Amino acid sequence: MHNVTVGMEFDVLKENNNIANENYEMLKDHKVVAIDFMGSIGAGKTALIIKLAEKLRAKGLRVHAIAGDVTGADDMTRMVDSGLTTTNCNTGKECHLDANMVHRCLHGIDLDSVDVLFIENVGNLVCPADFPLGTDMRVVVISTTEGDDMVRKHPDIFIHSDLAILNKVDIADAVDVDPQIIVNDYRKLTGGRKDIVLCSAKKGIGLDEVISCLGL
Amino acid sequence: MHNVTVGMEFDVLKENNNIANENYEMLKDHKVVAIDFMGSIGAGKTALIIKLAEKLRAKGLRVHAIAGDVTGADDMTRMVDSGLTTTNCNTGKECHLDANMVHRCLHGIDLDSVDVLFIENVGNLVCPADFPLGTDMRVVVISTTEGDDMVRKHPDIFIHSDLAILNKVDIADAVDVDPQIIVNDYRKLTGGRKDIVLCSAKKGIGLDEVISCLGL
Repeated sequence: MHNVTVGMEFDVLKENNNIANENYEMLKDHKVVAIDFMGSIGAGKTALIIKLAEKLRAKGLRVHAIAGDVTGADDMTRMVDSGLTTTNCNTGKECHLDANMVHRCLHGIDLDSVDVLFIENVGNLVCPADFPLGTDMRVVVISTTEGDDMVRKHPDIFIHSDLAILNKVDIADAVDVDPQIIVNDYRKLTGGRKDIVLCSAKKGIGLDEVISCLGL
Repeated sequence: MHNVTVGMEFDVLKENNNIANENYEMLKDHKVVAIDFMGSIGAGKTALIIKLAEKLRAKGLRVHAIAGDVTGADDMTRMVDSGLTTTNCNTGKECHLDANMVHRCLHGIDLDSVDVLFIENVGNLVCPADFPLGTDMRVVVISTTEGDDMVRKHPDIFIHSDLAILNKVDIADAVDVDPQIIVNDYRKLTGGRKDIVLCSAKKGIGLDEVISCLGL
């Protein structure tokens, strides 16, 4: 959180949660399952969403994505090129998506033609934790390239999410990271109550397990 | 920036800048050269600081580090294990160091026995941009593992820094990233007025060039 007074911070978070609840109701009215993908820059959120969407479309599900970024449309372009219908959401200066930004996006999407909505948050392993968007699940994506101390350094985002995905396990050796250290830290932090999936979006490893954990 | 009113945001930034100026004067009084290292989680800031400090110590310079993190002391421990005297600075919930946090740290350091102060900011490629700490230079560290679109996605932090370091160039091929794309984006953004150094802290590539760019 940025350095503002406690009162102001509380209001911002409370207002966000109110709008998140509206988003949740709106998505339920249209029978849309929504997932918030959080994680640092380069964790592989875009690639993961593209691969998961391909698998879900092959099962006959209609998938839409919201690509959140501070600026630009690189992620949206990659998603659209893969055949995934996508709404771009630039935050300007904001370091995370908030429920109001997503609310505005939802009004531009024909939700009756969507079964699953993937929301890619801004690349940041700190700030998005405090801003629920009204999704069914929140997923945090980390990468072996980020080192083996992610869970110890940033417990908040793991506590505020329902599932963790450790991406790029195929290059764990190349970056000298032992995935088991991360898994152990995560299990210790969550008391073993939440799943962590070892994954490589690039190599197609772990995608079916992710889909199963998401209940899709 | 988090979603607060413009007035509040302005006050926070103005107050930060006032304290940053105090820090700058305090460091100058003690003839300390200070560098702020910003960058995402896993960019390799800690490894880079350790390797640069080793080279500077070999030249007879006295180096101190401030390790900024949301929680924990992993980075400080790595620095201390390398022989680098280090002050830990946990931000609690904050997604960046601010000038006041650094000010408190400075009062705990014997600045007369320090020639160079390396400050490792919290792992985040967005928020630290707006909060100068009062250092001589601000450096942004990115990694090939973060993809080739970093500069396009997060121009602010590059605009607010004096030097960019592209780390982990030794594994660029393994992660399918062409460093030249990043270099070209950076040159275009900065009009060629700022340097970008291709580096591998792990393999010792580019460290002397970084030291030269820092004027050390």
